[in-house]
Amino acid sequence: MPVNPDVADSAFLRAARREPVPHTPVWFMRQAGRSLPEYRRVRAGVPMLQACRTPDLITEITLQPVRRYGVDAAILFSDIVVPLQAVGVDLDIKPGVGPVIARPVRSSADLEQLRPLDEGDVGFVVDAIEALTSELGATPLIGFAGAPFTLASYLVEGGPSRNHEQTKALMYGAPDLWDELMRRLATMQATWLRVQVEAGASAVQLFDSWVGVLPAEDYQRYVMPHSAEVLAALGGTGVPRIHFGVGTGELLALMGEAGADVVGVDFRVPLDEAARRVGPDRALQGNLDPAALFAPWEVVARRTRAVLKAGAAAPGHIFNLGHGVIPETDPDMLARVVDLVHEEGLA
Amino acid sequence: MPVNPDVADSAFLRAARREPVPHTPVWFMRQAGRSLPEYRRVRAGVPMLQACRTPDLITEITLQPVRRYGVDAAILFSDIVVPLQAVGVDLDIKPGVGPVIARPVRSSADLEQLRPLDEGDVGFVVDAIEALTSELGATPLIGFAGAPFTLASYLVEGGPSRNHEQTKALMYGAPDLWDELMRRLATMQATWLRVQVEAGASAVQLFDSWVGVLPAEDYQRYVMPHSAEVLAALGGTGVPRIHFGVGTGELLALMGEAGADVVGVDFRVPLDEAARRVGPDRALQGNLDPAALFAPWEVVARRTRAVLKAGAAAPGHIFNLGHGVIPETDPDMLARVVDLVHEEGLA
Repeated sequence: MPVNPDVADSAFLRAARREPVPHTPVWFMRQAGRSLPEYRRVRAGVPMLQACRTPDLITEITLQPVRRYGVDAAILFSDIVVPLQAVGVDLDIKPGVGPVIARPVRSSADLEQLRPLDEGDVGFVVDAIEALTSELGATPLIGFAGAPFTLASYLVEGGPSRNHEQTKALMYGAPDLWDELMRRLATMQATWLRVQVEAGASAVQLFDSWVGVLPAEDYQRYVMPHSAEVLAALGGTGVPRIHFGVGTGELLALMGEAGADVVGVDFRVPLDEAARRVGPDRALQGNLDPAALFAPWEVVARRTRAVLKAGAAAPGHIFNLGHGVIPETDPDMLARVVDLVHEEGLA
Repeated sequence: MPVNPDVADSAFLRAARREPVPHTPVWFMRQAGRSLPEYRRVRAGVPMLQACRTPDLITEITLQPVRRYGVDAAILFSDIVVPLQAVGVDLDIKPGVGPVIARPVRSSADLEQLRPLDEGDVGFVVDAIEALTSELGATPLIGFAGAPFTLASYLVEGGPSRNHEQTKALMYGAPDLWDELMRRLATMQATWLRVQVEAGASAVQLFDSWVGVLPAEDYQRYVMPHSAEVLAALGGTGVPRIHFGVGTGELLALMGEAGADVVGVDFRVPLDEAARRVGPDRALQGNLDPAALFAPWEVVARRTRAVLKAGAAAPGHIFNLGHGVIPETDPDMLARVVDLVHEEGLA
């Protein structure tokens, strides 16, 4: 892992380590994606999972927002189901729907689909990261993974779900099976992220997109130990671990305690309040409402400044959205946000 | 409004008034709906909005869960867009999609669709409620309305929305237009609920289903005054006002302060914590996770007891789900929950 010394000293990694920064670093969840015309061009005719397995495309798409916006970090272009497919789970990403699993997990026999992930299963990502780290120069690359709960939800429901009722039925009604499913996923995701860090990623983000559908008590009992296992497996690497979920106001403290160095905050909780919940030992990431980017620039500027102000209450602040970029977003709006954060976001 | 004295003394209304109860009252959001075979039978071939305008169907569907479960309250079978259609807004409810508005509100000219609601526009609901109150005997009937924000979201987006970006763009970017839209909706919903109370409803619930997508500061500025106007308009009637939204953990105190007598709590925040946030002057309603009903009965029983226990911390507790009944729910599970609450939910 030949770390560029300028990467280690970047504003992004300094903020993640809660060190003084020359300016508030900024990147956007889903910064590489459908909102960019250059993304739509390279993706034309290429199915999502094929793009996620093609080193040249991973590299190009990951670099696009860095070139366009000058964001302070790149994030690996991938999808949370990529390691599932890599171990042979029969699945597809259907446009307009999301991941669809051929054989949903409902019994212990269904767990056979989930053999351990081997580095050789994901050579494409090693190739892409090696190319990326040389292209990115001083810009850090964030590794990408889904957290065990969110992956389990897709596997149990068979696809996206509004109420996650099959997931909860299994979690509450068959806790031993749930535990075995989550342990397999935690081991898989730990390997998936370790491969990315060994190839050159300078940080990781563990996305628990759907975990906000659980009350804190259930999170603590059924989810947190498994997310903690993934995060702990990276402890020895020294890279900052960001942990994020949507609608997780009730869970922020626990998501920090699970082993995050940086807690991602959605747009519902102001960062000063989030800092009170998470405490002084972790940096925060967030949390401009991506829907607010559809308002006129004066509004976006005012709200960007409010996020910077509230973020100053955290011991380290990485500016981001409070959720992924909405596909219809005007890229120029994001470009102006980056410039404003760089101009005014002084620690 | 010939109020049956037994209605006034019912466990449901006593709990709403924070008075001692013989047993914890229980009803379920969406208790009348697709989970019931008798509902699917009477709805076969009848479009949703036609059912909502037909007094015999409103009456029959509203009574079905009372007959089947012996719940402590009926809720008027309706849809939040019914008053919009009654004033002439061109809309439809598409199966599997939800309400679709022909001419979304994006400018002040689009507000012309929203003339004031007149009692004569909704005679069908007066007829239904008069029939219902005689059929229901001592069981209270809850009037039903959508809150201004949630209606505004449908009107501005043109239908259901994942991110509510057009709604937020208008709210933040054109606050005067937003204010006029919300004032028209508040006046409409106040009339809509007053008609229901004058016809015989003994309580009302104002559903702000989507308001959990706003941070508290925005709720306070852009939404709360308008919800407060609706709730205040019913103050003189003396009926308890229940106010509920999904994912509103950050908003619970404000939703109470908006003028609710009972704050509905979704399943993410335990009722004892909700009681701390809402304070001693309001009862709480909730909050068994509807997805948990897909687990085995022992799990459902344990979680029902946990809700009863946490609810004892509130100055009044109406047992309910933390969100509407999921269509695939087994009705027998709900029947057992009602029995358990009635047996064990002693104040």
